[in-house]
This record gives sequence, C-alpha cells and structure tokens, in this order.
Amino acid sequence: MKNRIIFIIGVSGCGKTTIGKLLAQKLNIPFFDGDGFHPEANIKKMSSGQPLNDDDRQGWLEILNDLAKKQLLNNSCVIVCSALKQKYRDTLRRDIESEIKWVHLSGSFNQIFERVNSRPNHFMPSELLQSQFDILENPENAIQIDVSMTPKNIIKTIKNELMTTSEFGLFGLGVMGKSLCRNLANNGFKISMFNRHIDGVEEDVAKNFKAQYQELSNAAAFDDIASFVDSLQQPRRIMLMVNAGKTIDYVIEDLLPHLSENDILIDGGNSNYVKTKERFDYLKNKGIHFIGTGVSGGEEGALKGPSIMPSGDLEAYKSVQPFLEKISAKDQNGIPCCTYVGPEGSGHFIKMVHNGVEYVEMQLLAEVCTILESLGKNPDDIANTLESWKDTANSYLLEITTTIFRKKEGNEWLVKKILDKAGNKGTGNWAAIASAKLGVPSTLIASALSSRYTSFYKEERIQLNKSFRTAGHTEFNVSTNDILEAYQFARIINHYQGFKLISEASKSYAWDLNLSEIARIWTSGCIIQSTLMQNLVDVFKKTSNILTNPTLIDSIKKFKPSAKKVVLQSILNDITSPCLGESIQFFNGITTVYSSANIVQAQRDYFGAHTYQRLDDSSGKNHHTNWK
Amino acid sequence: MKNRIIFIIGVSGCGKTTIGKLLAQKLNIPFFDGDGFHPEANIKKMSSGQPLNDDDRQGWLEILNDLAKKQLLNNSCVIVCSALKQKYRDTLRRDIESEIKWVHLSGSFNQIFERVNSRPNHFMPSELLQSQFDILENPENAIQIDVSMTPKNIIKTIKNELMTTSEFGLFGLGVMGKSLCRNLANNGFKISMFNRHIDGVEEDVAKNFKAQYQELSNAAAFDDIASFVDSLQQPRRIMLMVNAGKTIDYVIEDLLPHLSENDILIDGGNSNYVKTKERFDYLKNKGIHFIGTGVSGGEEGALKGPSIMPSGDLEAYKSVQPFLEKISAKDQNGIPCCTYVGPEGSGHFIKMVHNGVEYVEMQLLAEVCTILESLGKNPDDIANTLESWKDTANSYLLEITTTIFRKKEGNEWLVKKILDKAGNKGTGNWAAIASAKLGVPSTLIASALSSRYTSFYKEERIQLNKSFRTAGHTEFNVSTNDILEAYQFARIINHYQGFKLISEASKSYAWDLNLSEIARIWTSGCIIQSTLMQNLVDVFKKTSNILTNPTLIDSIKKFKPSAKKVVLQSILNDITSPCLGESIQFFNGITTVYSSANIVQAQRDYFGAHTYQRLDDSSGKNHHTNWK
Repeated sequence: MKNRIIFIIGVSGCGKTTIGKLLAQKLNIPFFDGDGFHPEANIKKMSSGQPLNDDDRQGWLEILNDLAKKQLLNNSCVIVCSALKQKYRDTLRRDIESEIKWVHLSGSFNQIFERVNSRPNHFMPSELLQSQFDILENPENAIQIDVSMTPKNIIKTIKNELMTTSEFGLFGLGVMGKSLCRNLANNGFKISMFNRHIDGVEEDVAKNFKAQYQELSNAAAFDDIASFVDSLQQPRRIMLMVNAGKTIDYVIEDLLPHLSENDILIDGGNSNYVKTKERFDYLKNKGIHFIGTGVSGGEEGALKGPSIMPSGDLEAYKSVQPFLEKISAKDQNGIPCCTYVGPEGSGHFIKMVHNGVEYVEMQLLAEVCTILESLGKNPDDIANTLESWKDTANSYLLEITTTIFRKKEGNEWLVKKILDKAGNKGTGNWAAIASAKLGVPSTLIASALSSRYTSFYKEERIQLNKSFRTAGHTEFNVSTNDILEAYQFARIINHYQGFKLISEASKSYAWDLNLSEIARIWTSGCIIQSTLMQNLVDVFKKTSNILTNPTLIDSIKKFKPSAKKVVLQSILNDITSPCLGESIQFFNGITTVYSSANIVQAQRDYFGAHTYQRLDDSSGKNHHTNWK
Repeated sequence: MKNRIIFIIGVSGCGKTTIGKLLAQKLNIPFFDGDGFHPEANIKKMSSGQPLNDDDRQGWLEILNDLAKKQLLNNSCVIVCSALKQKYRDTLRRDIESEIKWVHLSGSFNQIFERVNSRPNHFMPSELLQSQFDILENPENAIQIDVSMTPKNIIKTIKNELMTTSEFGLFGLGVMGKSLCRNLANNGFKISMFNRHIDGVEEDVAKNFKAQYQELSNAAAFDDIASFVDSLQQPRRIMLMVNAGKTIDYVIEDLLPHLSENDILIDGGNSNYVKTKERFDYLKNKGIHFIGTGVSGGEEGALKGPSIMPSGDLEAYKSVQPFLEKISAKDQNGIPCCTYVGPEGSGHFIKMVHNGVEYVEMQLLAEVCTILESLGKNPDDIANTLESWKDTANSYLLEITTTIFRKKEGNEWLVKKILDKAGNKGTGNWAAIASAKLGVPSTLIASALSSRYTSFYKEERIQLNKSFRTAGHTEFNVSTNDILEAYQFARIINHYQGFKLISEASKSYAWDLNLSEIARIWTSGCIIQSTLMQNLVDVFKKTSNILTNPTLIDSIKKFKPSAKKVVLQSILNDITSPCLGESIQFFNGITTVYSSANIVQAQRDYFGAHTYQRLDDSSGKNHHTNWK
C-alpha cells in the first residue's frame, strides 16, 4: 500500500493524542504531535499568555505540511493537530491531497466537556471549549469517529476504514474503464471496480481483470452493486464509465437505492451536455452530486494519463479533484491536464467540441495523405513526409498517422487493406448539431462528419463511379511543402472554429469558460494535443479570437497561397478535399466585409415578408418592401 | 354562398323523402329522388323480383354523381339516396367532395321499425330492415339527425348546421393564417377565424380582418376560444397557424377543454417533425386527431394556392382533404399540390427538407450573383442575365431574384442597401440537425445554413478584413454561361441531397414516402418550384437516386467542367462560394470508389480500439491491430 499521512483532528479534549498514539502503534508507523512543532515565536507568545492568531498558525501549519511531505518519502505516519478550520487543513494538505487521510474525532459539546473534566488534573472552562466548537468547520471527506466509543473500537473502526474500504469506485470495465482503474491503482489509490454480470456474456469481468494486473492486487472487484457501493468510503466517489445515452440513466437508477447523501457520481463517458445538465438537476434533488467529465486520450491516454474535463458543482469537484488530477496527464510545466471547466454540462460540451476538432484533424490528415498518394507516393513515402512535418506541425494525430502508414502485414501495407467506411460514435455529430443550434458556423466539423457519412455509402459510390468517372487524372502540380502549408492553414481555421463554438456556448449559457485553460489541458493526454495547441494557451491569454493574434495572422498569410494551390489542384484532378476546400471558403467568408446575405434577406422579404435591415439605417429597424 | 349538394341518406323507412322534399322547399332548391335515376337494366331486374348487387348499383351511383356535378354548375340541390356503404358514398362524391353535405337520418332498429309500420299501407318485414342495418356503415362527417325529432325540428337542425356553423376553423391570423383564410373563403368555404386578444397589442384582429376583405363577409370572426370552437361543425376541423414551438402546445391546451371526440387539429406551421409525432400521440390518447402539415408558398402562395404536405392519421386526413386540396396550388395537370405524405410527422419532415433545399437554392443564387458582380455587372445587368436563364433553369426563386435586382429606390438599387446579415427561422437548422442525426451527408444545407450564420458576424468580418485583405482582385476569367452551368450543376446536387435525406428518413422511420409524389406537389405553389422539380416527378418514378437518371447524368457531365472553372476562379479571386464549392467536393466524394476513410478508421482503431473492417474480408468482421 502507498504511503499515507493520517491526520487525527478535532477539538481540544476529543482524545486526539491518545487515539493517535494507539493508532501509530497498531499500524507500526511514526507518531507526531503537531503541538511539538510550533516555531520559537509561537512558543514565546503562548508562554507569555497571548493567544495565537491565524497568521501565527500559518507558519506552523506549513511546518507540519513539510513534515508530512518528508515522511511520505519513506513511510506513512500519524500526525495529531486540531485543524478546526478548512483553511488550516488546506495548508496541511498542500500538494499531497491524495496521500492524506483525515480522521475526525467528533462528539457533542456535552460529550467532550464531560470527557475532559472527568480526567484527573484536567479542567477546561466551558467558554474555552465553546470557542473551539465555534470555529470548528466540519471536515468533508474525513473518517468521522464518534468519541463515545471505546479507544479499542475507535482504532478498529479507523483501521477498517483505512484498510478495507476504497477511496474511489469505477463502474463499468470497458476499454476506457479498465485503463482508468489501472491508472488509479498505479497512483496508489485504493479502488473498487464494478462490472455487471450477464450470464454467458459478461461473467466475473472485474475479478478476472483484477487477476490480470499486478497493480490491481489491492483493488476490490465486484459484480454486485450493493457490495460495490458498500466497499466505498463516504462520501462515495463513483466514476461511471459506461456507454453514453440511456445506459447512464439506467445505471443511475440502479445505484440510487444504495447511495447516501453527498455521494458523488462522475460521468466520464461522452454524454450529451444537455443530458448532463438534466442529470445534475435530477440528482441534486436527491442529495447526490453529479460531475460530468470529458476524458480524452483513448485507451492509452486513460492508462498513462488522459486529459480530463470535469464540470458541475465546484464543491463536489474538490472532493474528487485529488484523484482526477493525479491520474491525468501533465502539461509541459508539470501541471495536471485536468481543470474544473465550469458549471452544468460544460465539461461534456468542451469534450464534444474536442472530438469535433479531432474529427477535422483526422479528416485533414486523410485528405492530405490522399493528395500525397496522388503525387505517386507509397505509404512509406507518405510516412516519411509526415515524419518530416513534425518539426513544424507536430501533433499526436500526425505521429500516429505516421506509424499507421508504416505498418505492414507481411509485404503489404495494412492501411491499404482497411475498408473505407468511417464510423462515428456520436460526439462529432452532436458538435455539428450544437453549432447548428447555437448559430455558430462550425463548417469544418460539419464537413468532416459528412465525409464519414459519405464514406458509408460505399456501394452507391461504386455504382455512381461507373457513370461518372472515365478519364484518368491530369498532373497534380503541387509540392509536399505546399501540402504541408495547406494543412497548417486548415488546422488554424479548425482551431479557430472549435474555440469559437466554445466561446459562443460560454456566452449563451453564461458558463464563463477559460479558453486558455481549456487549451492547456488539451496540450497533453488528449487526442488533439499538438504544438499548435501549446501555442494557443498563450494566444488565448490575450484574445478569444485566434485570427486576431499577430503570429497566426502572419501564418495564415504565409500559408494561404499554398492552401489555394492545393485545393485548386485537387478540384482540377477531381479529388475530393472537402475540409481543405471549406477552410478556404470559410476564411474568405469570415473576412468579407460585404457578404451576399443581402440577397438572401431580399428573397426572404419577398416571399415571406420576413423584413430586412438597411445599411443606411443603424437603428436596426426592420423594413419591408413590396418588391413587385 | 357556394353551391352545395345535400345528400339525405339513411336506411329504408328513415324518412329520407319526406325530409328531403321539405328541406328543398325550405331552401328553395331542386329536389331529386335518387331511386328515380336507375338505369333501364336495374329497373327490369327489380321488377322481375331480383335484388340488385353492387355492380348493378355502381352505374346508378355514377349517374347520381353526374347529376350532382351538373346541378353544381347552376344551383344547390337535395338528393335522396340510402347510400349505406362508404363505397357508394365514395362514388357519389367523386370529384366534388368539398361541395357535398351529407345528412344522415339515423335511429335504432326499433325506432325505424315502429316508424315504418305505423305508416298506412306500409309494411316492412323485420328481416329486410335488419339487412339494411347490417350493411349500414355509419358515415363520418355527416350531419347526424335523430329521426325521433319532428320533421320541423329536423329541418331546423339541418338548416342550422348548413347555414350558421362553419366547416373549417383557422386559428391564428398572422401573415400565413390571413392568406389561408382568404383562400378558403375565396373557394366558397364557410370558415371561422380566431385570433387571440391581447390588450393594446392584438385587439379585434379577426373582426378587423373580416371587415377588410369582401370575400370574408360570410366568415365568422372570434377572439374568444369557446365561441370559436362552438361555431364549427362536428367533427371540427381547426387549422393552427401559430408560431412553431411551445406556442403550439399552449394553444392545444387552450383548445382541449372545448373539443369533442374525433375533432381534428391541423398544425400548418413549421413544427419540428419529432414534436409533431409527440403531439399526435398525446392527442390520440384524448380522442383528438392531429395532422401535421407543411405549407409552402409564403404569403402569396398561401393566398393563391400553396403546396400542402399533410401527414398523420389517413382517416382523419380524408375529412380535411377536400378543404386542403381545394385551396392548394394545382400542378401542370390541374391536380392539387397537396397529398397525404405519410404517417407521423412526415409532412413536417419533408417541409423541413423543402426549406433546407430552399436555403441552398437561395444561397446558390446569392453566390452566383456575387460572381456576376465580380465580372463588373450592375444589378440591372445581373437581372438581365438571370432573366436569360429562365429558358434553361427556371424557378420561382430565379424569378423573384430577377425582380429583386431590378428594384430601385429613386436612382439606386434597393438590393445594395440591405444589411448583409441573413436570418433564419429554424427549419434549415433542423434539416442540418436531422441529417446529422440520420447519418446522411446533406452538406449543401449545412453550408447554406453556415453561410447565414457567418453573415451574422458582420462586426468580426469587418475587423478580420482589415488584417487579411490587402490586394485587389485579379481577373475573373469565366463567362456567364460557365456560371449558369455551375449553378445548374450545384442545383442537381442540391436536389440529390435533399431527396436523399427524405428517402433515408423514410427508410429509418418506415414511412414509405413517395418521392415522385413529393416532387409533384413541389412543382407549384411552393418556394422551390422549378422546371428541374417538374423533371424530377418522372425521374422518381424510376429511381430514388437522381444521379442514376441518364438525362441527369448527361447534364452533370456537361456542367461539371464549368462548375470546376467557376469554383477555381472564385478561389483564385478570394471570393467565397461555399455551396458551389461544396457541390463539387461532395460530387467527387460520392463518386469515389476508394475514399480516404480507411485512414480515419486506422486512426480510430489506433487510439480508441474502435476496430475496422477489411477490404479482403467481406464477412464484415471487426478487426483490431496493435499498431505500434
């Protein structure tokens, strides 16, 4: 088991020292009495009869925090400290949240008062004890111990809680759920894992999974919901990794009878953000916290550190924050790629947009590789070209595409053997729908999604090809550098559109999202991590519109001629390149002062009396004309 | 009032002749006893003691139908005929449904038996009467008269029903509602009109509207729901022309307490097809029929004859069919541009797609006119060019755009003064969403919608233009004929995509829609009527995929080089032409045997273990590779 700091806390007279010493002895770990670590100044002040204020305490608490950090390097330990206020505990746990266990010895005023004054040579005036209760802020996420129990029972209870109950539950052991379990266990967390039982289909999934990996030896495996929930410390933290959609609702209903107030459910699937808000409200009514969380990184990311995008109730999030931050990827500066995104379903919303941007990045690579192929390159050549682009346009997707093009089966390239029908699991689709609903032109997402849809009509494509395709291609007159620059151009437009969708949603829903922070948690762990994304972290500190950033303006100006050239050549050669093409069309649209929408407005007014506004009337008044 | 045929029907002995004669006398119109019109053969057969069969009756019923048609040319009349079966009545009303009033004299077996046998010199064996009841199929939409009333009261009731109650109610007097009222009244229907009362905002709307138009002198005007509903014959037919969305639900709730079983609500607004199905189910539970109806044609179409797209319960539709067909536009062959589309919300679905196609047609004209402008043409030149295209590519939208470009304010062209921000009212948006949900690539609708959205960012466009646009245009090297052909190319792709969306929805929802019939009702009355649409009526008789039609294949082959040329030139000149551009990109995609989706599938399998299928494994098995 990993090292832990066990803080025994509570008001004066609750029995912290007694219990702390007994516990340390029982667990065979060092014991420290916090009161012994006051700095000189505090000791002087106290011995002169002056009470300490919070400023005095701060230094002392920091000493205890350092003590805990040092101890953690070698061993677990017990530290006793009243730690009545949350801000004291915040200092004590700084940087080591996930390694701390709080044990709160609690009782009523009368219980403690009698307890203290029954001891020989002890007397505490009732006003003094009352002041302790006045400043006590009940700790969340602590093991709560009733001081009226015997010390023996108290120790047994604490040991039980520490040893046999889990800190975190994972519900649903699919590809992502399994990887997250291993990630949590590798980070030293005591977890419970659940997978449903279906006769002959899903049997002993959790048990078999546990047996498969060394790091899960300390994890508890269940296929019975009641036992799974019982195995968790309260408030329970249960992450759901099940199929998005109706399944989530069924799972919630199955869990509800077993949950207690303030338990926390975390939906880590790709749920629709609108549904996440509905579930949040539904569970709030029942006293259960709900956190909708985007998780990106695929199987490998989930195992080694995904990008995590939680949203919902900030207070509830704090209780799961140490876990999510610990298992998440870390950015260039070592900061977790996990951040509280915002209220409601904002976490699932940005995950949805993440996936939309991902669809486009994938489609752009597919288009680019097709064009490279038209230049006569074989898959190895293509891989080499992509490899050479890492200096200027690196991304996770570029890297894996390079690997893909190298992969052989015997003497043949595997990529050539894959059926050209692309699937989708809903989030790209939802991103297109959300942009339609919000009135935001996310044309590249729509285009990438449609390309997948079109690919699905394979039989029709073959049929139509017979009628329409006759002549061979002409010469494809572009350089690989032209293609690289066209790719870079389209990627900037893709990121512009994706973040525009987020910022417009943030305005519409009053979410107040931080674009720079979102870009930051997407710099590692997730599928769309890239050097461009790293650059955007700083770009978004100054603007919410990346096309106003001077460096990107220069890039766009530099890349556009190549983008035009590549798209022109692909049209000339009858090669479809919808996302590359649309990147130019959209850019020309969003940089046009006078669009052609005046004609559309005139038509709408003509046949539907929908009215129009006028360039020469800034009042915004609606005008109508009898056009005939 | 318009001419009517009043058929008095019912079993032998119910008193048809007595009541018919009295009624004709009271209304001062001719009376005909149907029994007097049997052909010679029937008379012979009956006098030889043989009973008539349905074949014998058919000719006779046709004679009565002819009689009714002839009478209608000059006058109303009363015709008496038992007409016990629905199929007899179907023959009697052929081609003149909306001019017929059925009066059914009904009573229990005992009532009629006693009534007949109490008459002097009359005796009807009970078996004979029983056989009449056996074949009686109770007529829907008839004025039901209880034979136990006195003849005087019966006549009064019939007159009341005929004279003072309305056949059709129109709820909501906006632009479209008003036009439909005038259309109904112009067609001789007795209507009731309702508009809500809002102090100081909407007062006496119906009353003032009635006063404004001669044709409404016979219409009844209301601002009180109870009176409005009371004024309608049962089953009531009420067409709702209110804002789509929540308003429809509020209106339904307001109406419900006043409605009776089998009343029919028709939602003629642009409601979401999913909601239409929900409302259909909700109202079915309450015994109310609900018909969702697309209505296209704008203000003018609604007045002179719109294209109407009803769906829902076929039986309920039959009751409103005469009204909707009468007020609808007529196609080239004089057949109403109104057809029962299919079940559930299929009518609103196809209206939604209609509007999506409309968005694209409008956007294409906007792009084309912008390119014509780049050739140095002024609005009059552009209008002349569009005018010259009517021979080859005529459409309602082409015609109105021509008119728009001619319109001047003093010496200045009005189109130049319109603010270039295009609005939208939801259906284009829904079409994009529906295609995303159904997995159908409706890229042109998405593109046209996005163009409107982009137009809305006028301030950003101005800002970005400053950073990016510097040099002037180069030469735009295309002819007006190139532009016409590019326009025709893109329009074919637009219609291909629109009807593909419909046919895929028809499959997904098992609606069994008739594409040819849908094209037919869009050949007149609606916004997207065009010569191309007229051609599609026949095309869809042979295929559901217009790109397999030989004539259209030739057109595409002929137009594509021009489409490429125009798009290339617009990209070279930095002019946005997203729909023209996408028409080529999509066409190249849907005619490609090997798409680039294999690359996307490899990426998905790499990071998400989403698996892939193989070209060399037709079993459809899912494969997974460890790519590293």
